[in-house]
Amino acid sequence: MSFGFELIGADPGGVRTGRITTDHGVIDTPAFMPVGTQATVKTLAPEDLIGAGAQIILANTYHLHLRPGEELIREAGGIRRFMSWPGPVLTDSGGYQVFSLADLRKISNDGVSFRSHVDGSRRYLTPENVVDIQLDIGSDIMMVLDHCAEYPCSYETALEAVVRTTLWAERSLARYGPRISRDGYERVLFGIVQGSVLEDLRERSVRELVALDFPGYAIGGLSVGESKEDLYGIAGFTAKMLPVEKPRYLMGVGFPEDLVEAVARGIDMFDCVMPTRNARNGTVFTSRGRVILKNASNRRDFGPLDPDCDCDTCRNYSRAYLRHLFMAGEMLGPRLATVHSIRFYLHLMEEMRQVIREGLFSQWRKDFYEKYAKSAG
Amino acid sequence: MSFGFELIGADPGGVRTGRITTDHGVIDTPAFMPVGTQATVKTLAPEDLIGAGAQIILANTYHLHLRPGEELIREAGGIRRFMSWPGPVLTDSGGYQVFSLADLRKISNDGVSFRSHVDGSRRYLTPENVVDIQLDIGSDIMMVLDHCAEYPCSYETALEAVVRTTLWAERSLARYGPRISRDGYERVLFGIVQGSVLEDLRERSVRELVALDFPGYAIGGLSVGESKEDLYGIAGFTAKMLPVEKPRYLMGVGFPEDLVEAVARGIDMFDCVMPTRNARNGTVFTSRGRVILKNASNRRDFGPLDPDCDCDTCRNYSRAYLRHLFMAGEMLGPRLATVHSIRFYLHLMEEMRQVIREGLFSQWRKDFYEKYAKSAG
Repeated sequence: MSFGFELIGADPGGVRTGRITTDHGVIDTPAFMPVGTQATVKTLAPEDLIGAGAQIILANTYHLHLRPGEELIREAGGIRRFMSWPGPVLTDSGGYQVFSLADLRKISNDGVSFRSHVDGSRRYLTPENVVDIQLDIGSDIMMVLDHCAEYPCSYETALEAVVRTTLWAERSLARYGPRISRDGYERVLFGIVQGSVLEDLRERSVRELVALDFPGYAIGGLSVGESKEDLYGIAGFTAKMLPVEKPRYLMGVGFPEDLVEAVARGIDMFDCVMPTRNARNGTVFTSRGRVILKNASNRRDFGPLDPDCDCDTCRNYSRAYLRHLFMAGEMLGPRLATVHSIRFYLHLMEEMRQVIREGLFSQWRKDFYEKYAKSAG
Repeated sequence: MSFGFELIGADPGGVRTGRITTDHGVIDTPAFMPVGTQATVKTLAPEDLIGAGAQIILANTYHLHLRPGEELIREAGGIRRFMSWPGPVLTDSGGYQVFSLADLRKISNDGVSFRSHVDGSRRYLTPENVVDIQLDIGSDIMMVLDHCAEYPCSYETALEAVVRTTLWAERSLARYGPRISRDGYERVLFGIVQGSVLEDLRERSVRELVALDFPGYAIGGLSVGESKEDLYGIAGFTAKMLPVEKPRYLMGVGFPEDLVEAVARGIDMFDCVMPTRNARNGTVFTSRGRVILKNASNRRDFGPLDPDCDCDTCRNYSRAYLRHLFMAGEMLGPRLATVHSIRFYLHLMEEMRQVIREGLFSQWRKDFYEKYAKSAG
């Protein structure tokens, strides 16, 4: 088996469902990838992810490069063996983290140097060593190093990021090509479209990257502070220009409604820390909207967090118990809340896949908002 | 079914194995009870406890009384339903916590008043309301309020604690008797022997409490700073005087070797935060001794934490991964370490039960020390 993408259903509006094939399993799209930054989806064990229906997880190259280091992960037999996760893994390039987390960053066309937030050591990422690091980590889908401009930024800055991103994409491919067979499985490289919220730059970025013929394309540089109108607008504008036969991944997005809107505009893959990070703080997404577990209204609520949810947390525990765990500072609270939030996101994707196959997405989208807007506090 | 205790095997030296029956399940003895202070064994879900072989857990009356309050737990349908734990629960009386945690404590023969460490409110525990609180919590085995003298203390202080503990034991029984059927299951009261490290006071305490005919007896006031010699000596001295047909519970003990020594002296039940608290700090007990997960020696150790352990953690993860989780501050670290430590304690009890049945305890005890002493750091 090797990497592939098959479209199963699509409609003229651009919404689509499909299936990605990898050597470690299939990923039904639209897909949400839980974020396992440091080779663990915070608070969860792999069996929890499988129980929640996860088919792929994302790990962060930047974090793993700094700690424990890609050599250690390679020695362990790759990230799947290291963390005991049996399915496919996507790694980002680390570029976004360098721009958002690292100190003393210096960027040039050659690469980006920065100071590690873990131990203060000086590090250097280039398009080439980012491929090498990801090969050591052992992900199935690797991302090229890109230049993500801050938001807002000048036209010149956005243009510079696009030009550099294309240059780096070419160098990433020059390393070993877009499909690399190693250790008995295939790893593929995805390109990343930049261009801020500027349509002409997005168009240029797409044109240059599509010419390089990547196995898949990500849309980067969004969800960085722009308006929802720009997020949805640029995501849709960009998705429409991407080749129909390749998967499209909108990086770092987002709220449940953002996933619905992006799927409506033809996006196939998502990742976001939103469900896991919020869950750890006691805020969870449910079919009735957002719930803040510490709210006094949950104190004597012996019903489930979300009556429509089939997750372990909703089947076994009450809101009153979850609130107690958060009030008492118990680690089981973040864990049970994360189980629910991840299941909620994955179930949302399952629902969307089904209604797209059945040609009922437009109606479903209306129903979703009607129910979701009833926030249950 | 109602509460009962059956001896299965014993030898003249005092070591014994048996079985406690409750309306929510049996408990094979010697038994270790994982501590679920705030209605959760920290980091673990009930299925983890079942997977580790737990047959009973302990919860702390003091903590649950302060937060979320026993009324809420009663409304939830009792602690088993509240926390989704299907098996028997033992609650302590809160006395020990009042003496070790609370501020502005005032003790008289009537009861003990203190200031809540949670919200500063003034609280009052009496032998009677401690029974009522535990009935609301819904445990299967309840402890009487006792007076645990600090260590070291004068003869007069130790004597006062013994006299008051007997007085309070009588009042506890006077409330509803030693066996209370409510909500369709039986709850029983255990007496607690005090007397510090003084044999004549231990003897007096045993004599007075045995006359009250409790369904089971705990040995309190140990593991509070005394020497190992005193701990083992007084535990053994006290156990010998207790009725052979009732379960004997040594409260708050201890290290793996303490369990072995106490079993050798005729103890049937244990609880301790040792395995769970240490695991959260990255120190775990194994068949080869104590392991400090953050030690550099574990960095490239891709073998299991304990090659003799059948827990989920040892079957699925390496020491290198566990170390990474602790170095990176990931919550999965404490969780996986706790799974192992609880399983190690419970497996130790399983082994002891088996060798006692087979009449091989003495030899096993020697083998245990030989292996355990090889600390694998």
